[in-house]
Amino acid sequence: MTTPPLSDRVRLRRRHDRGGYDATTLYPILDAMPMCSVGYVFDGHPYVTPTLQWREGGDVFWHGSSASRMLQAVDTAEVCLTVAILDGFVMARSGFHHSTNYRSVMLLGTARKVSDPDEKEARLKAFVDGNFPGRWDILRPPLAQEMKGTTVLTMPIREASSKVRTGPPKDDDEDYALPIWAGVIPVRMEVLDPVPDPRNLEGVEPPEHILNFRLD
Amino acid sequence: MTTPPLSDRVRLRRRHDRGGYDATTLYPILDAMPMCSVGYVFDGHPYVTPTLQWREGGDVFWHGSSASRMLQAVDTAEVCLTVAILDGFVMARSGFHHSTNYRSVMLLGTARKVSDPDEKEARLKAFVDGNFPGRWDILRPPLAQEMKGTTVLTMPIREASSKVRTGPPKDDDEDYALPIWAGVIPVRMEVLDPVPDPRNLEGVEPPEHILNFRLD
Repeated sequence: MTTPPLSDRVRLRRRHDRGGYDATTLYPILDAMPMCSVGYVFDGHPYVTPTLQWREGGDVFWHGSSASRMLQAVDTAEVCLTVAILDGFVMARSGFHHSTNYRSVMLLGTARKVSDPDEKEARLKAFVDGNFPGRWDILRPPLAQEMKGTTVLTMPIREASSKVRTGPPKDDDEDYALPIWAGVIPVRMEVLDPVPDPRNLEGVEPPEHILNFRLD
Repeated sequence: MTTPPLSDRVRLRRRHDRGGYDATTLYPILDAMPMCSVGYVFDGHPYVTPTLQWREGGDVFWHGSSASRMLQAVDTAEVCLTVAILDGFVMARSGFHHSTNYRSVMLLGTARKVSDPDEKEARLKAFVDGNFPGRWDILRPPLAQEMKGTTVLTMPIREASSKVRTGPPKDDDEDYALPIWAGVIPVRMEVLDPVPDPRNLEGVEPPEHILNFRLD
């Protein structure tokens, strides 16, 4: 059922039962959580920058200020982009078998800047509209200097693996006889009611893309 | 009010208003969210591994299987550990001023294994009890082979910075006149009701440390 990994670097060494390498497992995790971590090497040192990612087809994108050290460092450089969604704390009958339920993706590759201005604007529109359908067109259009000040990076989803854990704890057989409460404490990202900017004009109501916003 | 950074590597190049370098800003963020990302260099390539961290005094800890590639790679190696808590989506009147509210910490340093067995067990107890007070002592005690199969890593919280954004969007002055809904969509990690393991013994009820568990 699972496509074998294209690269030995992303192959799961342990817990093969938790791993996946195909679009069917990778894409829903990327699509469920914009927050990601981008790892890169700068001057020989490892750095990790939290940012937001979005996916279009088989490519992942992220963006930021053109002045950002991370964005300057990673153009045409190797990166490791991870998304990790915490789904619960797994409470076992021994400390050793405590765990978490989670969905995670690791992408390896070489990042490149989206340099064509039209493509860059189209990518940013897809980012905004992907999370908030229709928002791009109601916003004040971007200025040339804003587009210049924004860098969009991309990487193909090629060297990639997912890792997922679900379900109750897995204890040692003999430990199931112990009178210890075991189970899962589920957690999830909750989206709360939108808080209007105090400077909104009177009578401006939140559009559907604000009211309907969900994660997952 | 803010202690200057001890290292130029963690100094914020941009958005100094969002940065902090002292325990008062760093520790509450680390304590609010166990999930973290550990970045490291292996064979010259960047990797990021999501895992859980905990803090004792001025040191941060994380753990995993002794067979883990990450844990083997980072002993006495440089790492970058980040915690990032997403607090909201900041919806502005232009695409450019969209942002997120967040609390994040970046720690740089050299990881070392906790090799003394007694210290290792004490650290793991602090991890479990820090999140679930009193749980360690009601669990089946750890076996020697489990302790051997678990690696605990640590790093002093020394080269560190926090970055925080809160509040409404900051739009260009003239854009406040536009009839566009702006504001914040807050998000938070919600802790749901515990789900008992179907194999719990009859009459075993969840203890206080399960019922009272909170993030933040």
